[in-house]
Amino acid sequence: MRNLTLLTDLYQLTMGQGYFDEGKHEQWAAFDIFFRPNKLITYSVAAGMEQAAEYLENLHFDGEDLSYLRSLELFSDGFLSYLEALRFTGDMVAVQEGEVVFPYEPILTIRAPMLQAQLVETALLTFVNHQTLIASKAAKICAAAGGGVMEFGLRRAQGADAGIYGARAAMIGGCVGTSNVYAGKLFSVPVSGTMAHSWVMNFPDELTAFRAYAKYFPQNCLLLVDTYDTLKSGVPNAIQVFRELRERGYEAKGIRLDSGDLAYLSKEARKMLDAAGFEKAAICASGDLDEYSIRSLKEQGAKIDTWGVGTKLITSADMPALGGVYKLAAVFEEGREIPKIKLSDTTEKITNPGMKDVYRIYDNKGKAVADYIVRAGEQIDESKPLELFHPVETWKRMTVMDYHVRNLRTDWIKGGKRRMQARSLREINAFFREEYGRFWEEYTRLDMPHIYKVDLSPTLHSLKTQMMHSYGKGE
Amino acid sequence: MRNLTLLTDLYQLTMGQGYFDEGKHEQWAAFDIFFRPNKLITYSVAAGMEQAAEYLENLHFDGEDLSYLRSLELFSDGFLSYLEALRFTGDMVAVQEGEVVFPYEPILTIRAPMLQAQLVETALLTFVNHQTLIASKAAKICAAAGGGVMEFGLRRAQGADAGIYGARAAMIGGCVGTSNVYAGKLFSVPVSGTMAHSWVMNFPDELTAFRAYAKYFPQNCLLLVDTYDTLKSGVPNAIQVFRELRERGYEAKGIRLDSGDLAYLSKEARKMLDAAGFEKAAICASGDLDEYSIRSLKEQGAKIDTWGVGTKLITSADMPALGGVYKLAAVFEEGREIPKIKLSDTTEKITNPGMKDVYRIYDNKGKAVADYIVRAGEQIDESKPLELFHPVETWKRMTVMDYHVRNLRTDWIKGGKRRMQARSLREINAFFREEYGRFWEEYTRLDMPHIYKVDLSPTLHSLKTQMMHSYGKGE
Repeated sequence: MRNLTLLTDLYQLTMGQGYFDEGKHEQWAAFDIFFRPNKLITYSVAAGMEQAAEYLENLHFDGEDLSYLRSLELFSDGFLSYLEALRFTGDMVAVQEGEVVFPYEPILTIRAPMLQAQLVETALLTFVNHQTLIASKAAKICAAAGGGVMEFGLRRAQGADAGIYGARAAMIGGCVGTSNVYAGKLFSVPVSGTMAHSWVMNFPDELTAFRAYAKYFPQNCLLLVDTYDTLKSGVPNAIQVFRELRERGYEAKGIRLDSGDLAYLSKEARKMLDAAGFEKAAICASGDLDEYSIRSLKEQGAKIDTWGVGTKLITSADMPALGGVYKLAAVFEEGREIPKIKLSDTTEKITNPGMKDVYRIYDNKGKAVADYIVRAGEQIDESKPLELFHPVETWKRMTVMDYHVRNLRTDWIKGGKRRMQARSLREINAFFREEYGRFWEEYTRLDMPHIYKVDLSPTLHSLKTQMMHSYGKGE
Repeated sequence: MRNLTLLTDLYQLTMGQGYFDEGKHEQWAAFDIFFRPNKLITYSVAAGMEQAAEYLENLHFDGEDLSYLRSLELFSDGFLSYLEALRFTGDMVAVQEGEVVFPYEPILTIRAPMLQAQLVETALLTFVNHQTLIASKAAKICAAAGGGVMEFGLRRAQGADAGIYGARAAMIGGCVGTSNVYAGKLFSVPVSGTMAHSWVMNFPDELTAFRAYAKYFPQNCLLLVDTYDTLKSGVPNAIQVFRELRERGYEAKGIRLDSGDLAYLSKEARKMLDAAGFEKAAICASGDLDEYSIRSLKEQGAKIDTWGVGTKLITSADMPALGGVYKLAAVFEEGREIPKIKLSDTTEKITNPGMKDVYRIYDNKGKAVADYIVRAGEQIDESKPLELFHPVETWKRMTVMDYHVRNLRTDWIKGGKRRMQARSLREINAFFREEYGRFWEEYTRLDMPHIYKVDLSPTLHSLKTQMMHSYGKGE
């Protein structure tokens, strides 16, 4: 495992030196990761917590790191010695990966000595921002396709990790496989792929190229049919080879279309395949796809069974950063919590102070009604009606009855020790799909979705209001 | 060093097995990396070649990789044994990092046995697409700012590598430093950063927070002044602390503005700092900046000396993928080159066949006039006039006289052995700045730039035309 302890912003270390000199470095503090809404963020799918936890478990400065820091001539010997012995001794509380999450919710909280808590901010944001972004994009694409989406984006990813952990996140969001062999090995997920145009171009003609492939991969025979002319050459040649395969006792997997009018070509190709007796041969489409083009293709009646999605998935092209932040929620003095708030002229940017829990409220049919952020430890009595109100426009109220609640967050690391064990991507995706099914489609649709309610308990709301009034900007 | 040999698409390996079985795996072939134009790609800054070369030098499947591949039940024992011994034995010819490059130019060419050349496609594209994208974005941002840009994007990067190699590319494109400590260590580049809002919030008041910082970092004192009220509290408190610093014999570095109206605030802060005798204290601005907002701030007369640019740089937010491709240019039979062409209904998508060189033509003032792609080995006689013509609209012609040419590409790896040694980012950026200076501003400006000419030699053009006619799509 690479030691990513230096994967931080320099100011975390200069502040660390300052806290060390002030004797504040071991004062415990709590920071929340959350993100703010925008027109493309309705719901998100949490991911990256596993890498965050691995990073915290493995946190240590090695000799090279310390020599490098010494060379910057910013840090004292005492501080560098302290760093040499530093390990993560705090807590990480977070939602499960695959959890459906919403703006303002603390999806990950670090409670640790101040120096540690600051040091880890940057890397935790990098992991959680990136994977949550891609998992969410994948979820939208998979919802539009109705399944059968494969992640094909490695060559357009922003570096190796973007490809590897992007593939991971894509699987959490619902992709059924990836072309990325490294990710396949690392995460034990299905890998897929058969041939590129260069294979076809490397033989005297298309039929010879297809036959050669079928010879060596009779059980994995998916032929790329658009190198020359999809309907005049590619599909007829594929059908010819599928017949020869059947004579050898094998059934072809299908064809892939990578260019042209995918709606028209897929419909024509389907007719040709069916007429030739290959009703089960799948049609895979690829080429600059995303949730919008996939929806459009489906509306046009395209006969596409599986989808290879590359650039726009692996980069989340229409929104390439989630923008999650890491904000101080509390400090602790002699074990006592002192809530902290970050004020702003923009009401939506004011943070929710203190340690918190996040509950999801379900109705008696198991459908999600609202999320409910409370002060840590607040109990919800499910036998009593619960009045919800909008956190800013507080006159907007509703009362829920006959409901049950679920605490979305769990201890991942406690006192530096791992509590939550790693789960397989299959398990994580199953968890996501089950939870996603508890949301009305109105909340998850692409166009103008309803905004899902994320409300505050009266206790948290009154703490926040009181702190806003007593601090007052600039006072 | 991580072994990234498996960082490839599965189809490279299935095709590899096919070539192996066909006995074609050791047939030499050449593939070019190039990218196509779009409204945001006028010029680009080449980067990522160093990582491409390192990857090729280090290419080998280890025992774990081979066990994993065996577990897929797709590959024969013979093929897996062949992979076990496989090393890169081919050539990599590419432009220097920092080179100013344009669409259609083969910026990197691999000439190698077919199996190797296919295997490495994906990773090479990942490195070159990513870093060229970010270097180009950085170049535009730095041009708008006129210097003093620092890369602050790690927390919003698409994973660790996007942050690390994105910082590298940003330095190539002209950034003067990064907040990313890991990148600072790995690439020996300046790191910068002092404090976050949480530092200020962790003290009873802003003045105490500033004083504490100045106490420990008298030589690196750049204070973040927007936590409470920039002009009423932040700047006056900073000035107070700067006075105290001066009494101790130190000069303050300056202040950072991270929110609000940066044009107005910077002008007011400048006046306040100057009036207090701190004319040399710099004003640093950060917060959602890119080339357009920086240009706008400068047009408004903002008094900003240095710029911290994050999300929009590290993700190249308005175009998060370069879209570079890797296309077969030739195969070799008994050492003889057989040019290959990829046809398409879209004229611009037809590839330039065969082995090629790329020359840049400079006028007698040293300004770049056009780039000129020729068949490999074609000589240009600088003593004779050179007639250039548009590769598609061939009636568009011009003749250059009194010119000189430069071959943009060089041998990075020859027969598996590294030829070009790694250069420092400082050297690479110096090379970029010098070359950038040879281009008229008309080609590099943000709005509606002139399209720089990339023409083909008559020999290359006639080869291409002949191949297009003789292949004919679908024939």
